[in-house]
Amino acid sequence: MTTPFDVYDTTLRDGAQQEGLNLSVADKLNIARQIDRLGVGYIEGGWPGANPKDTEFFRRAREELRLDNAVLAAFGATRRAGVAAADDPLVAALRESGAQVVTLVAKSHDRHVELALRTTLEENLAMVRDTVTHLRAEGQRVFLDAEHFFDGYRANRDYALEVLRTAYEAGAEVVALCDTNGGMLPGWVADVVDDVVSTTQGRVGIHCHNDTGCAVANTLSAVDAGASHVQGTLNGYGERTGNADLVNVVANLELKAGRPVLPQGLLREATRIAHAVAEVTNVPPASRQPYVGTSAFAHKAGLHASAIKVDPDLYQHMSPEGVGNDMRLLVSDMAGRASIELKGRELGFDLSGDRALVDRVTARVKDLESRGYTFEAADASFELLLAEEVEGARPSYFEVESWRVITETPGAADAEAVSEATVKLRAGGARIVNTGEGNGPVNALDQALRGAIGQAYPEVAKFQLIDYKVRILDQGHGTDAITRVLIETTDGASSWVTVGVGANVIQASWGALVDGLTFGLRRAQVR
Amino acid sequence: MTTPFDVYDTTLRDGAQQEGLNLSVADKLNIARQIDRLGVGYIEGGWPGANPKDTEFFRRAREELRLDNAVLAAFGATRRAGVAAADDPLVAALRESGAQVVTLVAKSHDRHVELALRTTLEENLAMVRDTVTHLRAEGQRVFLDAEHFFDGYRANRDYALEVLRTAYEAGAEVVALCDTNGGMLPGWVADVVDDVVSTTQGRVGIHCHNDTGCAVANTLSAVDAGASHVQGTLNGYGERTGNADLVNVVANLELKAGRPVLPQGLLREATRIAHAVAEVTNVPPASRQPYVGTSAFAHKAGLHASAIKVDPDLYQHMSPEGVGNDMRLLVSDMAGRASIELKGRELGFDLSGDRALVDRVTARVKDLESRGYTFEAADASFELLLAEEVEGARPSYFEVESWRVITETPGAADAEAVSEATVKLRAGGARIVNTGEGNGPVNALDQALRGAIGQAYPEVAKFQLIDYKVRILDQGHGTDAITRVLIETTDGASSWVTVGVGANVIQASWGALVDGLTFGLRRAQVR
Repeated sequence: MTTPFDVYDTTLRDGAQQEGLNLSVADKLNIARQIDRLGVGYIEGGWPGANPKDTEFFRRAREELRLDNAVLAAFGATRRAGVAAADDPLVAALRESGAQVVTLVAKSHDRHVELALRTTLEENLAMVRDTVTHLRAEGQRVFLDAEHFFDGYRANRDYALEVLRTAYEAGAEVVALCDTNGGMLPGWVADVVDDVVSTTQGRVGIHCHNDTGCAVANTLSAVDAGASHVQGTLNGYGERTGNADLVNVVANLELKAGRPVLPQGLLREATRIAHAVAEVTNVPPASRQPYVGTSAFAHKAGLHASAIKVDPDLYQHMSPEGVGNDMRLLVSDMAGRASIELKGRELGFDLSGDRALVDRVTARVKDLESRGYTFEAADASFELLLAEEVEGARPSYFEVESWRVITETPGAADAEAVSEATVKLRAGGARIVNTGEGNGPVNALDQALRGAIGQAYPEVAKFQLIDYKVRILDQGHGTDAITRVLIETTDGASSWVTVGVGANVIQASWGALVDGLTFGLRRAQVR
Repeated sequence: MTTPFDVYDTTLRDGAQQEGLNLSVADKLNIARQIDRLGVGYIEGGWPGANPKDTEFFRRAREELRLDNAVLAAFGATRRAGVAAADDPLVAALRESGAQVVTLVAKSHDRHVELALRTTLEENLAMVRDTVTHLRAEGQRVFLDAEHFFDGYRANRDYALEVLRTAYEAGAEVVALCDTNGGMLPGWVADVVDDVVSTTQGRVGIHCHNDTGCAVANTLSAVDAGASHVQGTLNGYGERTGNADLVNVVANLELKAGRPVLPQGLLREATRIAHAVAEVTNVPPASRQPYVGTSAFAHKAGLHASAIKVDPDLYQHMSPEGVGNDMRLLVSDMAGRASIELKGRELGFDLSGDRALVDRVTARVKDLESRGYTFEAADASFELLLAEEVEGARPSYFEVESWRVITETPGAADAEAVSEATVKLRAGGARIVNTGEGNGPVNALDQALRGAIGQAYPEVAKFQLIDYKVRILDQGHGTDAITRVLIETTDGASSWVTVGVGANVIQASWGALVDGLTFGLRRAQVR
């Protein structure tokens, strides 16, 4: 029997501590589904009872979250000082969360016990013992996060180890040693983990922050020293400098150290998942991110190009397919073709026989992407582009003459602003002028446009705009930066995403709205 | 006598390989001056002879670049196969660069010699020997970058070591081992460096890329194994995933490992320098960057804030002053009273004596945050809120009567949309009506508002909007979702962030614009 090895994701809890990152319950459910596809063993969902959002997350997770690979874990603290575990409402929230696993954070640094918990070292041990025992008796599995462990170990090794022993004896499966302040270096982590493993004989986990730029290396160093449980977050999200980037840790373990830790083949989803999660968090992905960044396998041409053709492995540390990324030569169009063919097939267009067509589509996509478009998320806009190239003309159901939108404060400046849009277009043989009102300019424009087109195509009545995302590209140029808008439209049965780009956010939104309605009419097979 | 230790910056050469990074000669001179203030020993300026820009850089550097700490190094290759070093025009360019130090890149991987250089292993050794000998005879100091060393060592240890021996014998002071493809892990680097140091007895340097997320740790690992020369770049700039972040490496050596490597006190300039360099490169700084990122010493959780008051060192891995950074407390819905008090102190308001005031501010922050505001990033809006509560009234320099913004496609629907805004307000005793145009509604509104207020307060002329971020909250509700806008304004010397929220994106932007100008006028102490 081999020792189990846990890949434990804490994006939804510790990752959500990142400055500027605010996740709704729907966002968290969405991210959990994405991370599950990576094949991690555990997903920490949040702290039920500590805030209403996380309580709601676990309630909805019980009803609607079906995970293929991961076990959901609830995070929480040991019972308060001087209260029985069974009577502590925060412990009750963990018990009632429906999570199979509870990860309890416990103090293991003597000064933190005294200053932050304001209790005695003995009571802290009792709090660990009682809470673990109680939750185990209630049928939950318990992991323990030993907070500030490395600093605590330096301050008072005996006490830090005593906390671990207490947790193991009470039934904790794993104790994760946390470098909460993030100040450790790999050699130090190795020494401490080595001592803990040999002293306690328990299963040890590792939880690192990136304050020295060594979170990934510290995690690997702990594994080398005997840790069998690694914690981290997608895209390295987290407080301050972030947590260990879980994809980096896993890729290093699987592809470098030859130690499989995910179900076979799932690491190939890593790039897609990392980017999908970034779409939900709306934190722009770092192009230089190891393994999954858009620049991670990009090569400046010139000196190397001819040798890359002979043997690409001379110039890359691994095959980018291993993490679902692509090699990219910055001045060549090698990269796009295969994925465009693949994407076309996915949408029902067989492009494999027509090299010139694929070249044309690739060139257009590259051109549009250089101007800020993205087709990764906007399948519907991509299908319209493909249809245009395959069928010779862009599907079109209406011709727009002009549009205008006004936003103003009608009376006093502190009154609610109102927006009004007018569109003029030709559809179904008639000229239509329609005005819509809304609580924002895009909302008004959507009302005006759908109202106008609906007069010619009643199918439009079913369409509804359900998501609207704005991203400012090329930040640092103030309000005249390029804006990208993604719009999701539904017909009640399914939904599709379209993209618009422009220096003017309203024009970018307009482009995405027009694509959204056009795609919907095409799908409804309107002639 | 102690062994010398080199901190070698290659921002201007290897860092400039980063995708999207384009530096003019003036940019490079500017960056060199900044990096010199950090106290590094060597600044690699580029490859004279290989491109006109770098040749020009060295020409201008001779005339106008005065460095207090660093020696300028020129990068270049060993002579071409079959040509005498003295006759190779690229070697001549190095000779004539005026640089005291030449860093020669040489192949140390047998397959690269055969495939990229297309020459024999023997001729490659001769190229190393001849070029080093020639430049030494001409009075230059020579360092050698052994390209693809770690992969080459694996493929053919004897040959890789032979390249190093040849370089040392010809007079190279240091040989830097390059993990050119970036695929190494710390343990592997340590083993190889250890072997090289004990086999060759020469001075060894290290040059790492971040493809496994371990560039900093790999560099430290090499130093532990005996390397006495570290290469890296400011902000970790570089091809693909970047090079080792030199500030991280140095901070870890000085502050963690207790090994001073810069002139005393200069590491305290690191944050300022890293940001100044980012201004020149125009690459937005990563807030999560270790040591120097704006989030690197930011604390969010309310849980911790009360203990931070007692002993900040319990919650930070070092004092941020050590790298010229600041501790920052984020105000968020997780924060309690303690963090509001601390935040107030940070901004110059002593709230500790007034419990009712703190309660009032905390309640307002919680209420505003539940409606979509965030004060984590928007310090300036938070300061206005605090000032309102402390001073009894919100700072106000103008009274808005109304505003309106129109966006339209003037002629055909595919024409570029234009936006025009009109604001009516009272300022400095006069009623002002002003119209502004822009390529988007917020841009137009900003023009109109600043133009109007500038008529009463000339200070406004210095203000400029430098960043604009939109986030749709509560996604999944289409265009009628709540929108949050963050705006960053500068007065040329410093910058501040304000927040606006609303169902209408224009109204949200308006709120942030008004706060941005109000804060700027307050900071300028306008009465």
